[in-house]
Amino acid sequence: MTARLSDAEIVEHLDALNENADENNQWCRDGDAITRTFKFKNFIAAFGWMAQMAIWAEKFTHHPEWFNVYNKVEVKLTTHDVDGLSELDFKMAEKMNHYYAQ
Amino acid sequence: MTARLSDAEIVEHLDALNENADENNQWCRDGDAITRTFKFKNFIAAFGWMAQMAIWAEKFTHHPEWFNVYNKVEVKLTTHDVDGLSELDFKMAEKMNHYYAQ
Amino acid sequence: MTARLSDAEIVEHLDALNENADENNQWCRDGDAITRTFKFKNFIAAFGWMAQMAIWAEKFTHHPEWFNVYNKVEVKLTTHDVDGLSELDFKMAEKMNHYYAQ
Amino acid sequence: MTARLSDAEIVEHLDALNENADENNQWCRDGDAITRTFKFKNFIAAFGWMAQMAIWAEKFTHHPEWFNVYNKVEVKLTTHDVDGLSELDFKMAEKMNHYYAQ
Repeated sequence: MTARLSDAEIVEHLDALNENADENNQWCRDGDAITRTFKFKNFIAAFGWMAQMAIWAEKFTHHPEWFNVYNKVEVKLTTHDVDGLSELDFKMAEKMNHYYAQ
Repeated sequence: MTARLSDAEIVEHLDALNENADENNQWCRDGDAITRTFKFKNFIAAFGWMAQMAIWAEKFTHHPEWFNVYNKVEVKLTTHDVDGLSELDFKMAEKMNHYYAQ
Repeated sequence: MTARLSDAEIVEHLDALNENADENNQWCRDGDAITRTFKFKNFIAAFGWMAQMAIWAEKFTHHPEWFNVYNKVEVKLTTHDVDGLSELDFKMAEKMNHYYAQ
Repeated sequence: MTARLSDAEIVEHLDALNENADENNQWCRDGDAITRTFKFKNFIAAFGWMAQMAIWAEKFTHHPEWFNVYNKVEVKLTTHDVDGLSELDFKMAEKMNHYYAQ
C-alpha cells in the first residue's frame, strides 16, 4: 500500500482520479505530492466534508496537509515514508472526490 | 422566532417541510415536538451531516435531541422555552432536510 | 478482540474503567451493554468530544449508540456480533474516558 | 465589533492574549493579521479542537485561515472588511486559546 509509485504509475493513477473531473479543477502532481482545491457553497458545507475526511484519514492512518478558509479547502497528499507518492495518496484522493461529489 | 405555534400553524409548517418527502420518511408531530429519522450510507456520511447540523444548531442557539447509531440519526426538535413548537424548530428541520438532500 | 466476555471478566473490566471515576458518574452494566453519561460545559465542548469519538469509533470499526442534547451525551456500548460485551467495548469506553478527562 | 484597530490597540490586545502563554508559542502580529500555531498530542485531538472552533467561527460569522497537518494547526486571523484587525479577531483568538488550554 505504501510502496513508492513510479512516474508512469502516477500518470495512470492521476488519469483515473480525474476521469470525470471538470478540466479546471483536477488533481495535479506537484513533485512528491498531488494537490487539489475543493470549493463548497459555504463554510458549513466545507467543514462537514472535512469532518468526513478526518475520519477517513485516521482510518487509513494517512493524513492530508490541508488549508481551509471559508468555503475553500486546498489539499496536498504525499507519503513521507517513501519520499514520494503511494497508493495511499490515491486512495485518500478518491474518497475526497467521492464525498465531494455527493 | 420563538413564539409558541398553534396547532393550525404546526400543520401548515409540517406540510411545507414534508412537501418533497418520501411518504415513508417524513417529519411527524410528537406532542410538543417534531421528529424524523435520517439514514445515511454509512457512519462517516452520517457524522459529516451531524457536524454540519451541530454548527447550524449553535448558530441558531437551538439544539436538537438526537440519537445516533451507525448510519442512522433520530432527531427530535422542540422549544422548551415555550413548552411547544416554534419557528426555530422548523427552521432547524429545514436545514436538516436541505443538507441531507445533497 | 471481539470474543464475548464472561460476567467475571466484565466485572473486572468495569472496575478498571471506573478506577478514578466519581462514584456518581460511572460506567454501568446494562444487560448486554455498558452505559455512561458525559456532561460538558456546553454544546460546543460536547460536540468536539463527539467528533473525536467518531474518529475513534470508525478506526475501531465499533460504533456507539449515543444520544446528545445540549451539553449531555449518553453512551451505550455493546458488541452485536457476540450478543454481549467484548474487549472492543472497553477499549472504546477507555478512549471516551481519556478524552473526556482532558 | 469590526472597527479597524489601531497599532496601539493591537499591542494591548496581543499582550492580553499572550498573558499566560509560553514565550515560544504566542500569538504574533503579521501585518494585517495575527497568527499562532497550535500543537496537539495527535490528529484526533487536533481535529476535535478544529470542530469546536468551526462552530465558534460560524457563530461569530468570522472564519479563520487555517492549515492542518497531523497534530499541528496554523491559524491566521484577519478582518477583510476593514483591511486589518478588529475585535472579532481577538475574540476568536481567545476562544482558540481557551479551548486549547483545557
